[in-house]
Amino acid sequence: MNAYALFEEQQQSRGIDLNTVRSRLRALQIETPSWGYGDSGTRFKVFQKVGVPRTPFEKLEDAAQVHKVTGACQSVAIHIPWDQVDDYSQLRSHAESLGLTIGAINPNLFQDEDYMLGSVTHADSAIRNKAIAHLKECVDIAKETKSKDFSLWFADGTNYPGQGSIRQRKHWMLEGLQEMYKILDPDMRMLIEYKCFEPAFYHTDIADWGMAYNLSLKLGEQAQVLVDTGHHLPGANVEHIVSYLIDEGRLGGFHFNSYKYADDDLVVGTMNPYELFLIFYQILDALDSQEQLLVDTVNKMLYMIDQSHNIESKIPAMIRSVMNVQTQYAKALLIDHQEVAEAQRKGDVLGAEDAVRKAFEFDVTPLLHSIREEIGVPIDPMKAYLADNYGSSILARGKGGASW
Amino acid sequence: MNAYALFEEQQQSRGIDLNTVRSRLRALQIETPSWGYGDSGTRFKVFQKVGVPRTPFEKLEDAAQVHKVTGACQSVAIHIPWDQVDDYSQLRSHAESLGLTIGAINPNLFQDEDYMLGSVTHADSAIRNKAIAHLKECVDIAKETKSKDFSLWFADGTNYPGQGSIRQRKHWMLEGLQEMYKILDPDMRMLIEYKCFEPAFYHTDIADWGMAYNLSLKLGEQAQVLVDTGHHLPGANVEHIVSYLIDEGRLGGFHFNSYKYADDDLVVGTMNPYELFLIFYQILDALDSQEQLLVDTVNKMLYMIDQSHNIESKIPAMIRSVMNVQTQYAKALLIDHQEVAEAQRKGDVLGAEDAVRKAFEFDVTPLLHSIREEIGVPIDPMKAYLADNYGSSILARGKGGASW
Amino acid sequence: MNAYALFEEQQQSRGIDLNTVRSRLRALQIETPSWGYGDSGTRFKVFQKVGVPRTPFEKLEDAAQVHKVTGACQSVAIHIPWDQVDDYSQLRSHAESLGLTIGAINPNLFQDEDYMLGSVTHADSAIRNKAIAHLKECVDIAKETKSKDFSLWFADGTNYPGQGSIRQRKHWMLEGLQEMYKILDPDMRMLIEYKCFEPAFYHTDIADWGMAYNLSLKLGEQAQVLVDTGHHLPGANVEHIVSYLIDEGRLGGFHFNSYKYADDDLVVGTMNPYELFLIFYQILDALDSQEQLLVDTVNKMLYMIDQSHNIESKIPAMIRSVMNVQTQYAKALLIDHQEVAEAQRKGDVLGAEDAVRKAFEFDVTPLLHSIREEIGVPIDPMKAYLADNYGSSILARGKGGASW
Amino acid sequence: MNAYALFEEQQQSRGIDLNTVRSRLRALQIETPSWGYGDSGTRFKVFQKVGVPRTPFEKLEDAAQVHKVTGACQSVAIHIPWDQVDDYSQLRSHAESLGLTIGAINPNLFQDEDYMLGSVTHADSAIRNKAIAHLKECVDIAKETKSKDFSLWFADGTNYPGQGSIRQRKHWMLEGLQEMYKILDPDMRMLIEYKCFEPAFYHTDIADWGMAYNLSLKLGEQAQVLVDTGHHLPGANVEHIVSYLIDEGRLGGFHFNSYKYADDDLVVGTMNPYELFLIFYQILDALDSQEQLLVDTVNKMLYMIDQSHNIESKIPAMIRSVMNVQTQYAKALLIDHQEVAEAQRKGDVLGAEDAVRKAFEFDVTPLLHSIREEIGVPIDPMKAYLADNYGSSILARGKGGASW
Repeated sequence: MNAYALFEEQQQSRGIDLNTVRSRLRALQIETPSWGYGDSGTRFKVFQKVGVPRTPFEKLEDAAQVHKVTGACQSVAIHIPWDQVDDYSQLRSHAESLGLTIGAINPNLFQDEDYMLGSVTHADSAIRNKAIAHLKECVDIAKETKSKDFSLWFADGTNYPGQGSIRQRKHWMLEGLQEMYKILDPDMRMLIEYKCFEPAFYHTDIADWGMAYNLSLKLGEQAQVLVDTGHHLPGANVEHIVSYLIDEGRLGGFHFNSYKYADDDLVVGTMNPYELFLIFYQILDALDSQEQLLVDTVNKMLYMIDQSHNIESKIPAMIRSVMNVQTQYAKALLIDHQEVAEAQRKGDVLGAEDAVRKAFEFDVTPLLHSIREEIGVPIDPMKAYLADNYGSSILARGKGGASW
Repeated sequence: MNAYALFEEQQQSRGIDLNTVRSRLRALQIETPSWGYGDSGTRFKVFQKVGVPRTPFEKLEDAAQVHKVTGACQSVAIHIPWDQVDDYSQLRSHAESLGLTIGAINPNLFQDEDYMLGSVTHADSAIRNKAIAHLKECVDIAKETKSKDFSLWFADGTNYPGQGSIRQRKHWMLEGLQEMYKILDPDMRMLIEYKCFEPAFYHTDIADWGMAYNLSLKLGEQAQVLVDTGHHLPGANVEHIVSYLIDEGRLGGFHFNSYKYADDDLVVGTMNPYELFLIFYQILDALDSQEQLLVDTVNKMLYMIDQSHNIESKIPAMIRSVMNVQTQYAKALLIDHQEVAEAQRKGDVLGAEDAVRKAFEFDVTPLLHSIREEIGVPIDPMKAYLADNYGSSILARGKGGASW
Repeated sequence: MNAYALFEEQQQSRGIDLNTVRSRLRALQIETPSWGYGDSGTRFKVFQKVGVPRTPFEKLEDAAQVHKVTGACQSVAIHIPWDQVDDYSQLRSHAESLGLTIGAINPNLFQDEDYMLGSVTHADSAIRNKAIAHLKECVDIAKETKSKDFSLWFADGTNYPGQGSIRQRKHWMLEGLQEMYKILDPDMRMLIEYKCFEPAFYHTDIADWGMAYNLSLKLGEQAQVLVDTGHHLPGANVEHIVSYLIDEGRLGGFHFNSYKYADDDLVVGTMNPYELFLIFYQILDALDSQEQLLVDTVNKMLYMIDQSHNIESKIPAMIRSVMNVQTQYAKALLIDHQEVAEAQRKGDVLGAEDAVRKAFEFDVTPLLHSIREEIGVPIDPMKAYLADNYGSSILARGKGGASW
Repeated sequence: MNAYALFEEQQQSRGIDLNTVRSRLRALQIETPSWGYGDSGTRFKVFQKVGVPRTPFEKLEDAAQVHKVTGACQSVAIHIPWDQVDDYSQLRSHAESLGLTIGAINPNLFQDEDYMLGSVTHADSAIRNKAIAHLKECVDIAKETKSKDFSLWFADGTNYPGQGSIRQRKHWMLEGLQEMYKILDPDMRMLIEYKCFEPAFYHTDIADWGMAYNLSLKLGEQAQVLVDTGHHLPGANVEHIVSYLIDEGRLGGFHFNSYKYADDDLVVGTMNPYELFLIFYQILDALDSQEQLLVDTVNKMLYMIDQSHNIESKIPAMIRSVMNVQTQYAKALLIDHQEVAEAQRKGDVLGAEDAVRKAFEFDVTPLLHSIREEIGVPIDPMKAYLADNYGSSILARGKGGASW
């Protein structure tokens, strides 16, 4: 009996419906970020790698490699102006020619000298207007790239008590976002990110999920919250926030990455894989609720990677990230929600905990191999990529590619 | 020239309106909690003090001592069933005879064996109903004590992934609170507290301000958020939350205390007095905004102390707490908001920071002494209490008074 | 092909020596704490369970059940005075009659009224001497119980700046421990625990591993550090500390438990199982170093559970804890240290990470079942215990058993 | 009666010896860092200021301005290679011509491409040797600049479990430092810094004070620990560490700055000024102990500023930092150690806390003004600097000065 047959027998004996498991796993798509293929670093140093893409077009080519070996990464998020090109329809065509689509647009409002003290929350209305104009420009770009989502992260905040008026900036933030919201196409969505600190070290204008959520309420149905797994204070129960926002119909998607201390932006699934599994547990619990709002919310959520590969080989780091997400999602699919519910009803604390954790302890490698075989990608995407000569071919790009 | 004259000259030369400062300081009322006069401790040990009050009536007598020497603590919060009596109108009369009023009612939904796995979020509807009945009972008690506010803290949460359905419990919480809300008198308010952890160690049903705020939105205008300064994750910018909630018209009041690590419940103002000052800065900034919603919100806010005096003498600990609040409030009253606003407008980071911090560096002792003289209480409340023989008279109560 | 055969084939193809894996797994002994069988809680409430042991003798009987189904928990730690008996040789005989031994002695210096402001660091020499006398008394008890190790946790610390002289208390701590050290038998060990906070909320006299380590240096070879996994500040890299202390030959053992926020004392392996795995990775890496100091240190280390089962059934909670430790230890045994070292040498960041993480992703259930069969205990200890009637038989004890 | 006379009367009536206070305050010297005058930022952006110094010589000129208005900043720390010059004796002469001295040398082992995976702990011996050579080069530079101290901060660490051998790197660190130690002049000191994280996000080779202290023990008397106030995990009691290291005779000095979340590197004294005051309380408590080791240790300690002025005007930010250190030091000088000791002896928790905190509440502005008058610098250094035309004169330097 081979590994998958054993796995199948094991899960079926638990009453797990492998058809559902398999179809959900096949459908899992993970958007990769164009900037994840370039050089990135810390405030102390950006180490430069040989072979890093020099243009947005080359970034897409690297992203295509990840999709080629995983079959799960069709769309690619872009960052403006990091991915600024003269003709965005050409960028889209390039993506399509590689079997890709352009995903979420990420406006950048933190690298212009004007934004030192804020962008949409700057005390100077000229700078606020400049920031709003950039947001609107991104809507135009989205029309050309056929993107439907905007990942909105604002570095806006202050470093010292008194530096800015917290209340006034709160109002400016809403006003700025309203300007953008007005010009959205009906099928576009604003995904509002929050972050507890960095680069602002005293207060950040959108500091937590509550502030992002509240903005989304005031903006309208097309505004939702984006959860970056690394943007929380120590100890935060991220899966609680996830569950909460889904229940409100306001969770738009994720920026996945790993952290141990702060926004460390490490490869997702490498620090506390159980947390990632528990996030998927909440998502799947909502999906199985059969409540329309929840099911719709989950089905529209975007899974995006947002990492800084400071010391890692870029393409392999992305492949590893995708594989880790798949692994934890697959494990979460093995939770028997009936068993959990039954234990909860009986007040059986240890039984309920066990019903969740035991799914985490299964080895889902046979399942993942089987799915990959089915969709026609290598069973070990990392091995396949490393065996390929793409990695060596790009060395000709030399050092000094795109970075931030 | 005496100290106050020098202070007056100094502040007037800065353009500070001391009439406003003085009238605000005179008006500052701080509610003390009945349980702060009893024994409390950690999970490791509750140390028993000689002289701790044995009954709710004795707690009020101790609270009256704090009011006597400070003139700032007329109302006393009570906890049900810790302060359960047969006849609440008698308790109120006793308070009145001591020059006190009964303040916020604090229902207790965490010390009954039934509540081990939750109260209003328990999986068993019988227990949920019992919890709701207790909430309603507290509304009845409030009518007898003439209390207008309910401080609602729920220990409800789980210790393990899977132990409870996070979403289902979220709904039960809302439903339970709605039952209580319905029977409120029009001038009553529910103040909803949040807490990141303890005693629940995996997820807490109302874990942060966003969840408490969202509940208040769903309940109605009479529901507001209560900020306990010790109920946040490490690094949280509490004054940001304060400013945010005031701006939304949803900050109902405070539970003051100090913390270094978690919900340490130490004497307020002893760990990071600057944070307390910055909280008052946000409050006063809103008050001076002249926006009606903000002014009304601030004027209705309750300042309450909520501490565990594990090792301290109870009455002196309370006097110290009140004095520390007065000190930081007085300092915040010396901020020149015009100067701050001007620096903000110019983008003068260091100037704006200085405009706030410099108020903190003034010694407000002469001001506090002057106010106390004016209202006819001892200029040094602590010294006055310690010189009085009340402290020794209560030793006759012996050990083993009220505790939790 | 059954599950174990498949597992065997899989691991052998990776070059894993299953004989070594199996023999190490068979040898894994985990000491359970007598107090883990009693009621415990938070400062808010100790919920009482029916069937909790009423005497130290009954605690041993419960512990014997855990050993019976796991075969891995022969020794039981005791806490004095929680487990005070008139005749400790009788307690030892009772243990032996149950197939158990008495393990580490845990002096208790935090529940006497005298210790409110410190025990061995109290400003009053009479109280310091009382505390030292208790430490010495525990050495006497150890001689009767044939215990060789002392787990020394001190709640000593302060709640406020100025409350105590940090330096003076540092000296008193050393002096107190020296008094105990002097009377140790040559084969006895003092295991010095550290903790960042709780119940002290400003400073704790032995706050981190560095302070415990430094004490051990000054005391001598028989003093070592005890790592309680829940006693660290947020973000602390516990496995780094473990590796460091082993390298210095000063790690004496562990108190295992899980935490998300603070010293939550949850069932080990339920919050971040990967961290537990990574701790074992460091231990096994040292064991395989073939350096005598490291090998000896690891071989003498004690694995102890120290948890507060606030809401869980006590005996099942302990069985779950033991199983979780076994699971993560088994996974760590599957790390190919050669593969890791090779990737490290090449600077292959992703390869090295993968070499460690991949071991975590194996399902070790077949291995654990096989080992349990071999040593003659049920393959599923939890199921076996729940099927047994011991759990129902102890209900006759009623409520109100031992607690702290 | 003027402000100082009132202050004098007030303090003398408390029994404070103002002669000692004044002489200690006059003697307070604070070293400023050359890099604090250049541009710095976060990983997201380094904003460029007009007027930032372009060379090490210009940095000294800016530092001279800070000394000119404060009289307290004679020495300037340099960073190699940021301050690399052809002829270090020329740099020293330049400093001397400005009334300055060159202070601590800070080797830089984190910005060379070779150091991506470590410097003295790199797996490749060639890179370790390169790093050691740089350390030795810094000793040579020190001889030319007449510097006596080395501030040693290592970014070395790993981002993922398995990436490096924690134990092996521990040994390499010691070996590398031993190479440097060997060639020190007898009056030179190595000040070893620790940091919990950043830029390493999994483990940092010297992660906490315990590891730095242990290295110092192994290296010898000329090795001491450097405490950077921002390099701790959330909640760490920094003043406890300070007290501990002084008591061991191993505290070499400080890098001062402020933090709210992580290593935020903000202007010292702006986030939690009470913590800075409490650090000085421990220092002064040791100084007053009259124990020779402690007095010597304190007297040799260096107070250095280490900040990233991301958004602030550089020279004013440094002046503010120096003034804030002076303010908190002055307040700590007003603690009546006898009063504290007396309360401690009596177990008077609130009295002891009050004896410390009350010193913090005095306004020391009159004292600082008086001292400045005495030493012949402006009573308000910030105002004096802003009124001077130096700030505008350096605008001619343009943008794009030194940065990291």
